[in-house]
Amino acid sequence: MQVTAFAAPAEGEALVRTQIQRREVGPNDVLIEITYAGICHSDIHTVRGDWGPQSYPLAPGHEIVGTVTEVGSAVTRHSVGDTVGVGCMVNSCGQCVHCKAGDEQYCVEGMVGTYGAEDRDGTVTQGGYSTHVVVDADYVLSVPAGLDPAAAAPLLCAGITTYSPLKHWQAGPGKRVAVVGLGGLGHMAVKIAHAMGAEVTVLSQSLKKQEDGIRLGADHYFATSDPDTFESLASSFDLIINTVSAKIDVSAYLGLLDVNGSLVNVGAPAEPLSLNVFSLLTNRRSYSGSMIGGIAETQEMLDFCAEHGFGAEIELIEADQINEAYERVLASDVRYRFVIDAKTF
Amino acid sequence: MQVTAFAAPAEGEALVRTQIQRREVGPNDVLIEITYAGICHSDIHTVRGDWGPQSYPLAPGHEIVGTVTEVGSAVTRHSVGDTVGVGCMVNSCGQCVHCKAGDEQYCVEGMVGTYGAEDRDGTVTQGGYSTHVVVDADYVLSVPAGLDPAAAAPLLCAGITTYSPLKHWQAGPGKRVAVVGLGGLGHMAVKIAHAMGAEVTVLSQSLKKQEDGIRLGADHYFATSDPDTFESLASSFDLIINTVSAKIDVSAYLGLLDVNGSLVNVGAPAEPLSLNVFSLLTNRRSYSGSMIGGIAETQEMLDFCAEHGFGAEIELIEADQINEAYERVLASDVRYRFVIDAKTF
Repeated sequence: MQVTAFAAPAEGEALVRTQIQRREVGPNDVLIEITYAGICHSDIHTVRGDWGPQSYPLAPGHEIVGTVTEVGSAVTRHSVGDTVGVGCMVNSCGQCVHCKAGDEQYCVEGMVGTYGAEDRDGTVTQGGYSTHVVVDADYVLSVPAGLDPAAAAPLLCAGITTYSPLKHWQAGPGKRVAVVGLGGLGHMAVKIAHAMGAEVTVLSQSLKKQEDGIRLGADHYFATSDPDTFESLASSFDLIINTVSAKIDVSAYLGLLDVNGSLVNVGAPAEPLSLNVFSLLTNRRSYSGSMIGGIAETQEMLDFCAEHGFGAEIELIEADQINEAYERVLASDVRYRFVIDAKTF
Repeated sequence: MQVTAFAAPAEGEALVRTQIQRREVGPNDVLIEITYAGICHSDIHTVRGDWGPQSYPLAPGHEIVGTVTEVGSAVTRHSVGDTVGVGCMVNSCGQCVHCKAGDEQYCVEGMVGTYGAEDRDGTVTQGGYSTHVVVDADYVLSVPAGLDPAAAAPLLCAGITTYSPLKHWQAGPGKRVAVVGLGGLGHMAVKIAHAMGAEVTVLSQSLKKQEDGIRLGADHYFATSDPDTFESLASSFDLIINTVSAKIDVSAYLGLLDVNGSLVNVGAPAEPLSLNVFSLLTNRRSYSGSMIGGIAETQEMLDFCAEHGFGAEIELIEADQINEAYERVLASDVRYRFVIDAKTF
């Protein structure tokens, strides 16, 4: 099946409208007519080859919302007409201890990413900047009726990437949670941590977005460019979610954690970081990482957001604006997520 | 009160027999006639000024066992004639949330170390390489009758330093625990983790001590100098206790952790370490630190060791052999802890 997509023809080239191949709908597959696709910073890194060589043309996009238009003969989980979502993962072995525990993102054989990854049938996956996608029904989420579909798209990556560590490290009433960076991921971390009942502090480079941060649910807002911040907030958080993938002074942020506190990265800089181990010994601190979330947990996150009545804060664009949007993402000039109207592909 | 001690007269100088001052026994104090004092690697770093300038003369030693010879008027916890122990900590504020939670080692005002630290009365503490010590009764442990007092001395630092993280990170049946380094701390980690019911693997530079490791309770033993070790053991541990304070390739050790696994340092190199954050994102791993343990937990550890019938593996020496023993500790030439017979001070 040939479908229209926006794809990079080669490393470093701008995305253009093109045709890509989708597999026939197998017995366990769902055909989705895409309605919205979010733009994630990872899309840019991947198509530009920053994280290693890719196969081209490559259509990115792993924040997908759409409508089911066909289901395979064995599919019981979704029906034609359902509003559904697809996130960062479209397959995994399904058999290993982690898949069985609902941690498919840590599949022993490796999860299959939504684009640029070799699927279990040997084909290379293509993402959501496209009119249609065919996905194994077990990796397709239900988008609850209460969510605006466009604002729900970024939940499939930015939402679950922050929900999962907040849940795992038990953000909730009485927990002091800091969010480093108020971008696509950070703004979701603030909304979710606030909805979970935690006391939320934003640690941003400047106070430029302070008003937004408070409106989104933050109780406190500090500028990390001010050295006083690191003194006045020493040992005062239980959990810090670091949404900034650039290099940070890890030891300085660790210093903000109270006893048993964790600093959790949800992204990673390409180069190694330097770390003073004494900052871990003090207060029995941890420096941890977290990668998206499992399928059942992603569904739980969508239901949680619907129940609390929020999606992402988005700026809706047309397909022709993708390349310009990329430049704005790189310049941190978006509040807080670009979502592409799939009618314009 | 003047007592005999072995102390460094100045930075970098060998320890010599000298007289030091002990405070009068206050209402909450216990006077202990020391019978055994262990030699910890930290003693060497501290008296040599590796961790910052010290006040001299300085008598180190924070693995102390002795007999109570006098108690203050308000002391109910210990009686004259009791066999007791003193570890790395002789005071803390007692009022902060961490002291109240039994985590005195993470006291908000800072715990008071057994030597080279400013006590709450302004004096500088002197350690256990000495005939007597006066300590606040709340920081004095009971040494159970079943323990050999000489072999119990190293439990006060090496024992609690490894017991605490093994307990906190829930070593036990079904848990795969690796211990990096088979020295003073490592050999205790192996004994304790084994007694807790975990499956224990030693990761040592070479296979030189393999026989010992197995005898102490290890189920498996691997040489880290063999690169195959890091491939064959990838993602196979729930917990790694790193007892090596020298610089290690953290990312390589993180690669050995399965989903939700933790690598825990119980010591720290002076210089920062380099860390690839992707190794944390994969498998939701953590890199953590742990510092000794609280007073109640130290008592629990002593009782645990007594119940399981083991102390440390020691080499008993006389006071005049301390400087020579230091050189052997630095050369990793001790199986597994030197303990000084306090009759020879």
